[in-house]
Amino acid sequence: MVTKAIDMSPTTKPGVILELISYNREKYNKIDSTDPDELLTHLQPDQVNWVNLDGLGNIDIIEKLQAYFCLHPLLVDDVLADQRPKAEEYDDYLFFTLKMLYKIDGTSIDYEQISFVLGSNFLVSFQEKEGDLFEGFRERIRLDLGKVRKKHADYLLYRLIDIIVDNYYNVLDRVGDIIDEIEETVYENPSNETFYKIQSLKKELIYLRKALYPLRDALSKIVKGESEYVKEENIRYFSDVYDHVSHIIDSMDTFKDLTSSLMDIHINAMNTKMNEVMKVLTVISTIFMPLTFIVGVYGMNFKFMPELDWKYGYYVVWGIMGLIFISMMIYFRKKKWF
Amino acid sequence: MVTKAIDMSPTTKPGVILELISYNREKYNKIDSTDPDELLTHLQPDQVNWVNLDGLGNIDIIEKLQAYFCLHPLLVDDVLADQRPKAEEYDDYLFFTLKMLYKIDGTSIDYEQISFVLGSNFLVSFQEKEGDLFEGFRERIRLDLGKVRKKHADYLLYRLIDIIVDNYYNVLDRVGDIIDEIEETVYENPSNETFYKIQSLKKELIYLRKALYPLRDALSKIVKGESEYVKEENIRYFSDVYDHVSHIIDSMDTFKDLTSSLMDIHINAMNTKMNEVMKVLTVISTIFMPLTFIVGVYGMNFKFMPELDWKYGYYVVWGIMGLIFISMMIYFRKKKWF
Amino acid sequence: MVTKAIDMSPTTKPGVILELISYNREKYNKIDSTDPDELLTHLQPDQVNWVNLDGLGNIDIIEKLQAYFCLHPLLVDDVLADQRPKAEEYDDYLFFTLKMLYKIDGTSIDYEQISFVLGSNFLVSFQEKEGDLFEGFRERIRLDLGKVRKKHADYLLYRLIDIIVDNYYNVLDRVGDIIDEIEETVYENPSNETFYKIQSLKKELIYLRKALYPLRDALSKIVKGESEYVKEENIRYFSDVYDHVSHIIDSMDTFKDLTSSLMDIHINAMNTKMNEVMKVLTVISTIFMPLTFIVGVYGMNFKFMPELDWKYGYYVVWGIMGLIFISMMIYFRKKKWF
Amino acid sequence: MVTKAIDMSPTTKPGVILELISYNREKYNKIDSTDPDELLTHLQPDQVNWVNLDGLGNIDIIEKLQAYFCLHPLLVDDVLADQRPKAEEYDDYLFFTLKMLYKIDGTSIDYEQISFVLGSNFLVSFQEKEGDLFEGFRERIRLDLGKVRKKHADYLLYRLIDIIVDNYYNVLDRVGDIIDEIEETVYENPSNETFYKIQSLKKELIYLRKALYPLRDALSKIVKGESEYVKEENIRYFSDVYDHVSHIIDSMDTFKDLTSSLMDIHINAMNTKMNEVMKVLTVISTIFMPLTFIVGVYGMNFKFMPELDWKYGYYVVWGIMGLIFISMMIYFRKKKWF
Amino acid sequence: MVTKAIDMSPTTKPGVILELISYNREKYNKIDSTDPDELLTHLQPDQVNWVNLDGLGNIDIIEKLQAYFCLHPLLVDDVLADQRPKAEEYDDYLFFTLKMLYKIDGTSIDYEQISFVLGSNFLVSFQEKEGDLFEGFRERIRLDLGKVRKKHADYLLYRLIDIIVDNYYNVLDRVGDIIDEIEETVYENPSNETFYKIQSLKKELIYLRKALYPLRDALSKIVKGESEYVKEENIRYFSDVYDHVSHIIDSMDTFKDLTSSLMDIHINAMNTKMNEVMKVLTVISTIFMPLTFIVGVYGMNFKFMPELDWKYGYYVVWGIMGLIFISMMIYFRKKKWF
Repeated sequence: MVTKAIDMSPTTKPGVILELISYNREKYNKIDSTDPDELLTHLQPDQVNWVNLDGLGNIDIIEKLQAYFCLHPLLVDDVLADQRPKAEEYDDYLFFTLKMLYKIDGTSIDYEQISFVLGSNFLVSFQEKEGDLFEGFRERIRLDLGKVRKKHADYLLYRLIDIIVDNYYNVLDRVGDIIDEIEETVYENPSNETFYKIQSLKKELIYLRKALYPLRDALSKIVKGESEYVKEENIRYFSDVYDHVSHIIDSMDTFKDLTSSLMDIHINAMNTKMNEVMKVLTVISTIFMPLTFIVGVYGMNFKFMPELDWKYGYYVVWGIMGLIFISMMIYFRKKKWF
Repeated sequence: MVTKAIDMSPTTKPGVILELISYNREKYNKIDSTDPDELLTHLQPDQVNWVNLDGLGNIDIIEKLQAYFCLHPLLVDDVLADQRPKAEEYDDYLFFTLKMLYKIDGTSIDYEQISFVLGSNFLVSFQEKEGDLFEGFRERIRLDLGKVRKKHADYLLYRLIDIIVDNYYNVLDRVGDIIDEIEETVYENPSNETFYKIQSLKKELIYLRKALYPLRDALSKIVKGESEYVKEENIRYFSDVYDHVSHIIDSMDTFKDLTSSLMDIHINAMNTKMNEVMKVLTVISTIFMPLTFIVGVYGMNFKFMPELDWKYGYYVVWGIMGLIFISMMIYFRKKKWF
Repeated sequence: MVTKAIDMSPTTKPGVILELISYNREKYNKIDSTDPDELLTHLQPDQVNWVNLDGLGNIDIIEKLQAYFCLHPLLVDDVLADQRPKAEEYDDYLFFTLKMLYKIDGTSIDYEQISFVLGSNFLVSFQEKEGDLFEGFRERIRLDLGKVRKKHADYLLYRLIDIIVDNYYNVLDRVGDIIDEIEETVYENPSNETFYKIQSLKKELIYLRKALYPLRDALSKIVKGESEYVKEENIRYFSDVYDHVSHIIDSMDTFKDLTSSLMDIHINAMNTKMNEVMKVLTVISTIFMPLTFIVGVYGMNFKFMPELDWKYGYYVVWGIMGLIFISMMIYFRKKKWF
Repeated sequence: MVTKAIDMSPTTKPGVILELISYNREKYNKIDSTDPDELLTHLQPDQVNWVNLDGLGNIDIIEKLQAYFCLHPLLVDDVLADQRPKAEEYDDYLFFTLKMLYKIDGTSIDYEQISFVLGSNFLVSFQEKEGDLFEGFRERIRLDLGKVRKKHADYLLYRLIDIIVDNYYNVLDRVGDIIDEIEETVYENPSNETFYKIQSLKKELIYLRKALYPLRDALSKIVKGESEYVKEENIRYFSDVYDHVSHIIDSMDTFKDLTSSLMDIHINAMNTKMNEVMKVLTVISTIFMPLTFIVGVYGMNFKFMPELDWKYGYYVVWGIMGLIFISMMIYFRKKKWF
Repeated sequence: MVTKAIDMSPTTKPGVILELISYNREKYNKIDSTDPDELLTHLQPDQVNWVNLDGLGNIDIIEKLQAYFCLHPLLVDDVLADQRPKAEEYDDYLFFTLKMLYKIDGTSIDYEQISFVLGSNFLVSFQEKEGDLFEGFRERIRLDLGKVRKKHADYLLYRLIDIIVDNYYNVLDRVGDIIDEIEETVYENPSNETFYKIQSLKKELIYLRKALYPLRDALSKIVKGESEYVKEENIRYFSDVYDHVSHIIDSMDTFKDLTSSLMDIHINAMNTKMNEVMKVLTVISTIFMPLTFIVGVYGMNFKFMPELDWKYGYYVVWGIMGLIFISMMIYFRKKKWF
């Protein structure tokens, strides 16, 4: 999608949901609400506040968040419109946007843009649709598993990005499985179905690439320490995500090469089949055309055709035709045509 | 077009129009004129002055503007000739030139070069033809909507470039639509018409690329703060346009890959069709050549052909031919030739 | 040509011509000579001295110029041998070499290497052959048109390079025209002639690229202010030539893509034609092979063939053959084979 | 493999083996153990301690190593998951991971990830599977051959990486041999078998590239002196490995080009064969179709066909057919169709 | 070759030859020897000493040279193994290695690795085989032609590299000649022989590229002044060689494009031929199949076939067949099939 306008059907409007999770080492609180005014009163200055918005259809809510967090108008534009992944440092916060991938029905891939605003003690996340990959992680925060309750908002951002990037591996694994699957059949059976599978793989890789290359650039900005909202001690975590993205890009390039190799194999198998067809045609024609000519000769009605009166003429003709047939077969066998 | 000379038909000469819009927070004034001397007297030193020239055919007007704004001869050359998009800092102003895209009749794309000279309190814009994308924006200035009346000339330049770049999205959306449209038909029907559509898409993307890559470079110059005529506080706006152009370039590359994927599908569909044709030919030949040979045998006029005198000879021949026919059909069915 | 030795036939030797143009705001003098000793006495220390040498066959003259201007032996080697375009700063002068393009008979392109040595008050130019693109410009110097008489030797160098680069546009325009011309015919008529035209275009673009990319690098060296022999104030002029070369390279890349697109169209048209031929063959074979088989059946000479004795047997056979013919036609029409 | 989880079958669990080799100029000690607690007590602070772990299935052991050497959790994640080759400097050690290549049965290639943690007096190596390339080198340490006993842990790391990289040469040599082998047969015999061999070569090169490019980047980090755990004096050794990896990459690129050249040759040979088949078909058809037509003419049963009654009609027809045959042969011979 | 081990047959062992040339402005001395101990006593501290070794089979000699000049073990490894061209600065000398190209029998190309160690007053050169390109240059030193006797060891290194690089031009010229030669024939005669020539050209260019790109990098290191063993005043000379290598790389890329253009022409010529063959087949079939059908009709043996009894039936059939023939010819002529 290149459209700047938000791509969203009106039925998702009731799905607009605001959620606040605030925590520190000791405390944990979670509030769901559709009223931003009420929700924002619960922000705790001495805790990490994660405000999550599902659904971008309610401009009213977004404007209230914008006013509360002093969000720059350009930032809000970027949240609402389809954007390439990027990290952008503003005076009071860091803006980070990327694509979240879902598998739908286990076959096609769905993209959702997710944007983050990271301040000193808050993280606002904007999602296009309800439902995300973070359910298990929310539970880990509540139960105080892992380090997240001991860390600040930048670590929270790292964890969320890491979960999204980890999900890319799932998508790539599926691509790898399909490649293996195609490879087993393409040599034997270069069907159109195989060809379409290869094409749809290529398409998925094209879209993945569009999501991943800018993401790597965005992460590299943070890794270089250009943001003051990511603490020195936590840069290593973002560096790790950066390595994962690089690894995924490598794998993607590898898959791209394998896919184009599959294309070559498909084309070669098609050509081999065609060659085979042509050989059958040629063998049949080359054998039967001379024979048909011969029998045609003795089907002529000339009055004076001495052979016709020979007693064994008929058998002689069969003999000649048999010789032609056998020598043809030897010739084609030598040429390895069948 | 590579020609340096201006590409313009004489009939557009009467279309040469000078327009001055000067404004600040309180005041707004708009003057249309064909007399530069008179128009230039209305420039307000304490306001933002936007001088717009439609049509480059009247050298006289251009020379008067050149004299008034002390434009460098090389700059004027660049305005008059086809130029690659660029930003160039002169002592007294910033020069910026890019391509404006129009859709004509909703199908083909028209390019127009637009050049800007940005000074501390003025912006001069040079357009090749009458009519532009700014009509709605002029109205917004007049009605004091948005921030433009509160800002300086550099913000005006940003808005104009942003409007032009936004229009690129429209062009790309159309390319995306055509790709979707072709994709639906190309698997089934690899017609030449489809092929020509793919080719014209490729051509549009080739020209787009030529317009966009240098534009990104030009914007990056401004984003890096190399120009003193774009204020620190407004660089973020140009940075936003820069991101849009990067996004468009990403999409363009994606579309390029999709287009070449469409080509592969088209070629494969062509080959599949060809294969099908060859198979029909081979099946028909392989079945009827032996049969025709057999009936030819019994069309021979030898005096001594015992089979001819058999009572059921004719039926035996039909039986043999039936057997050949059926075994051929089984053979081809096994080979999945039809 | 990769050869380091000078590519020159002995007949051009008499064409070796030395020319000196010295000028400043007030004075202008032009001397033609074949005797370097005599000519060099006319150099004016307080004027711009342009020494031009046509023809590199007379080593004697070159050695005298080398001695007079203290030219480095490597520099002289570079002048005499085929060189990639480059700018090289020596202690006492700037060395610049590039390719000059000519159209010969309006069709093929001829390359000539031209080298410049720019000192503080002189410019020496070395050309391989007599005749160049500067005739009109010499006249402009004489008549004191433009700024050249008011400027120094570096501006003279700029003007000469600018004239050479401008001529590249002519060559590219011709390429563009041929592309348009081919595009009109290639869809309908994929002849070999078209194919050869496309190939020769590709070849011209390959050679152009070899001349242009290093030229851009050479100019960028000057634009970055690395040479003390090009004054700060004149760098903008070289920067303008740099932009032109970048523009030409962009156009060249565009043309390269268009050319390979033409190739695709040609190949597709060839394949379409081939498909058409194969369809004709298949249609004809598929219709007439069964028919020929049928008439063969009733050409058999069996004694007992009841159909032969039927009164309307002949007409029945015609009827059956007519049915087969019509159903085949309907089948092929449905498959859109013709 | 893109999976982050460790790819390991449970049967390798018993293969988990811990090994400690500690040495300096005078002393040498080697301990095998499955109990990390016991093993770690044998570390000698004044010697080089090489701790090697074969098999990553026992999380318990890894956690004890992690605790002892204060390994960062991200580092342990990297050891356990499939990782792109990289060098990463931590506060107390340098982390280095790369791929080890094995030839299995002399044909297919097996990859194993090996990770190193280099501290001031220790080197920990993590291998996925039992068995490695270092057996001969362990013996060299024991016998005090070469410089390793006189050097520190960073030299030990260099030697291990060098051994792994040297083994890449073996893999590449094999690729080169197969290319030579294919080249000898592909011109004559473009079989599918050849094609599959080429494809499997391409696949091996694709995977090799994925292992090698990041390895070069990782080594370049060390060569630039970014790690404090590699001493200045030993950087030259890593620089040498870096050169080897560059050389291997060059060779790999060369092989890639040669492989795609083999593909071209294969395709051309296929096409040549196809052409040959088509020519045989065309020659046979072109000769026998007119002849069969002629004999068909004289097989017609018209009452009034004067030729049939001619005495030498039959011989005249043979003569005409002979003429047609000979002129066809001359025609095809001239066209060089056989 | 990727093998690290030296590729050398034992028969070259007797060919191991040591040679010392020492010179300054006044003196010149040349000694051939197979005993390094004796030879090394003749080194003159106040002269330039060029020690040349032909053949790397005698490890003894190499070890003595290593001891005398304090060569680093890694350097000796690099001399003995196949290496990518590189320049490497050690404490006491500069190491430079590159490939020397020979034409063997004027057709195939042979590569030899040559390595240099440049100290303050000596240059050691290691060659794999006897015989090199320097014979003429040795004579120039002896006769004190050119500047070499007036310069130091770094100038000697420049001259030797320059001679090697100059020889690359010869190889490239040959490639250019073959391209021209192929181009003349490929349009008319797309034989397999032409195709193999194109492929062998491609192969040569692939190997050349592998030798040249790293050489340019190595030279650029010296040009940037990174070596203290090349004096400031002589860097210009190396810069000149650098330009030559860049020029050769440009030409190589050009040749690569021309070669792939030749491939396109070859493929097109093949396809055109194939099309021609198919057209002949189709024309013949389309003309004779209907005709054969017609004569088959009147070869049927029905008792009641009125046409057979017509007096001019036979001639009418000929007339109809003539009409069919002529209209087919007109049809194909219109379609430009022949």
